[in-house]
Amino acid sequence: MKELNIGIIGIGNMGGTHMRNIYDGKIPGARLAAVCDIDPEKCEKAAAALDGVAVFGDYKEMLTSGLADAVIIAVPHYLHPPIAKEAFQHGLHVLTEKPAGVSATEVASMNEAAENSGKVFGIMWNQRTNPLFQKAREFMKNGVLGTPKRLVWIITNWYRTQSYYNSGTWRATWSGEGGGVLLNQAPHNLDLWQWIFGMPDEISAICNEGKWHNIEVEDEAIITGYYSNGATATFITSTGEYPGTNRLEISGSKGKMVIEKGVLKLSLLDQDEREFCFTESEGFPRYQLNELEFHQTEPEAAHIGILKNFTNAVLYGEELIAPGYDGIREITISNAAYLSSWTGKKVSVKNFDSSLFDSLLKEKIDNSKPKVAECSNAEGQACRWQTNW
Amino acid sequence: MKELNIGIIGIGNMGGTHMRNIYDGKIPGARLAAVCDIDPEKCEKAAAALDGVAVFGDYKEMLTSGLADAVIIAVPHYLHPPIAKEAFQHGLHVLTEKPAGVSATEVASMNEAAENSGKVFGIMWNQRTNPLFQKAREFMKNGVLGTPKRLVWIITNWYRTQSYYNSGTWRATWSGEGGGVLLNQAPHNLDLWQWIFGMPDEISAICNEGKWHNIEVEDEAIITGYYSNGATATFITSTGEYPGTNRLEISGSKGKMVIEKGVLKLSLLDQDEREFCFTESEGFPRYQLNELEFHQTEPEAAHIGILKNFTNAVLYGEELIAPGYDGIREITISNAAYLSSWTGKKVSVKNFDSSLFDSLLKEKIDNSKPKVAECSNAEGQACRWQTNW
Repeated sequence: MKELNIGIIGIGNMGGTHMRNIYDGKIPGARLAAVCDIDPEKCEKAAAALDGVAVFGDYKEMLTSGLADAVIIAVPHYLHPPIAKEAFQHGLHVLTEKPAGVSATEVASMNEAAENSGKVFGIMWNQRTNPLFQKAREFMKNGVLGTPKRLVWIITNWYRTQSYYNSGTWRATWSGEGGGVLLNQAPHNLDLWQWIFGMPDEISAICNEGKWHNIEVEDEAIITGYYSNGATATFITSTGEYPGTNRLEISGSKGKMVIEKGVLKLSLLDQDEREFCFTESEGFPRYQLNELEFHQTEPEAAHIGILKNFTNAVLYGEELIAPGYDGIREITISNAAYLSSWTGKKVSVKNFDSSLFDSLLKEKIDNSKPKVAECSNAEGQACRWQTNW
Repeated sequence: MKELNIGIIGIGNMGGTHMRNIYDGKIPGARLAAVCDIDPEKCEKAAAALDGVAVFGDYKEMLTSGLADAVIIAVPHYLHPPIAKEAFQHGLHVLTEKPAGVSATEVASMNEAAENSGKVFGIMWNQRTNPLFQKAREFMKNGVLGTPKRLVWIITNWYRTQSYYNSGTWRATWSGEGGGVLLNQAPHNLDLWQWIFGMPDEISAICNEGKWHNIEVEDEAIITGYYSNGATATFITSTGEYPGTNRLEISGSKGKMVIEKGVLKLSLLDQDEREFCFTESEGFPRYQLNELEFHQTEPEAAHIGILKNFTNAVLYGEELIAPGYDGIREITISNAAYLSSWTGKKVSVKNFDSSLFDSLLKEKIDNSKPKVAECSNAEGQACRWQTNW
């Protein structure tokens, strides 16, 4: 059987989880060849716990060691593009944690490096493994809902306490993390939005910084996306509401789809609304609807699903569920939302001015205040990475 | 038994319904004394059908006839304030159809006339009689949900076909009606928004004109309201989606409330989130919620409920469910949404610039195109005035 030698860069929260999953043999065909972290304590623990796995304190050494054919990048967001680019230059396959990076400029240059290398490039959009989101995408692609009209996603169940934000010095700072709920929690949903409903052409947004917590980045955002065909998308997210909501509604000319609490409900028309709107003689007509329900009966494959798929993509050419190249779509939506909020203007996504974004982000970084970590309590809650209904 | 002599000005769609309800004795204590319409055909029909009811072709004659102690104004929106003002000047009580008018300037001057007259002044916010909305208001007023954080109302089930818009020459024109879905269909929801959640301080909005129909006014709007305490409100409405949604969600510091499909669901915390956010040591805590459900078991009292209440207010001093003075709140939200959309800016509601709105509306009116009515098919669907789940 073929085997893929994997190195993990960063074995904190997420990288540590991937490390255990691969080491424990949960990913057929994947072998944990090496791990790397700048924290000596983490390295010591890993060396003691892992048999036959090389441990590095410097990722550059790992990249040139020849031990790994592929790397998983699980370091703070800013570092994804530069490390990925180096890995590609060394001819390695790359699976990066989400988001792809902090700035679309950086992510574009990472994509270029990936393309030049010809290596397999994946991104950890683990919620794409959810069967309901997969079904939603299929319905949109196959025209089951007709022409897209509207998306409304209330995704306010990313609740975090102040202690979460206090658990790391880099967390929720412009310099360390590069953003708040849009960069850390909601990227999954921003990606699913574009994956299911397509990329908006323009965006306006309000991102409220430090509204519910003592942090300098946003803990709430309201985004409106505009499509050239007239469709709109409203996206509402927050880490300051309990209990929150996770409800995705999509309307099209042939009906409506709602995903909430692990159920996808379809309400379909026999005829396209765009037709009967102009032929129906009744002013307030009522139509029969075909109602269908799909239940999520099993937990989504999540990270393990993405790891298996990435491994199979390298070994057997399996199609990627989450190609790394897709990361630029999500980060452009997120960057555009910030830019709109910072400038008070509607901004183009299609011709996104990423250099303006970069210069305004730099101002934020320059004014970013150092922060003292209080404690580290964000470990060991693996279930939170499943779609939270 | 005391009796209130009522005159109705305008006996088209709504006025005709009120006429039948009063004439048929459905409003105890109310007597239909007179009706008035500029359409001779409607007057003839009314004269033939109604026994002992005076019929006028000119409302001014009705106001001075001494036959009516109170009038119901059910003419196109623009005419509500001027006719109400005249009625107050003649010492009559007034119940006006919604919305209060088209411009907050006009409505403010109507309110002033009402105040000077000291007469009873009501407005037809019939959806305020819905027991679920009443309960929602009670919960917010009594602090059951704690401090308000967010309102999201997806109210896209105001579906209309092109034939509806073609059914009257004044319909869906700036000159004849003064607006689209925000002025005709959604005012109920805009009023309930402010009635339950309070008035926003600022508003930004996108109102899309003629997006789904051949009309010059908006058939879709997305509004965001901002509150001085940091709370936000997102309001999405459309007449171009089938099937639509009517889902109101309100979050507060002590929990969440969702009203949809005739059910109000409450999810309450034992402790205020604003407290545990800063004391909880877990970063991603899970709390037990107290879940309560309230079902709407009976149809709301609707127009008949408001007519009874108005009659009792005049006869016995009963407190009004919908004081006419409240109309300015709804129309200011609606005017502010237009102004924000027309100027591309966030606008103040608290210090609303109604003269700027008036001048921009005048431009719209000046460019308004004459329209030919095709047919009249919007009669006889009384059930549509109930809350549509």
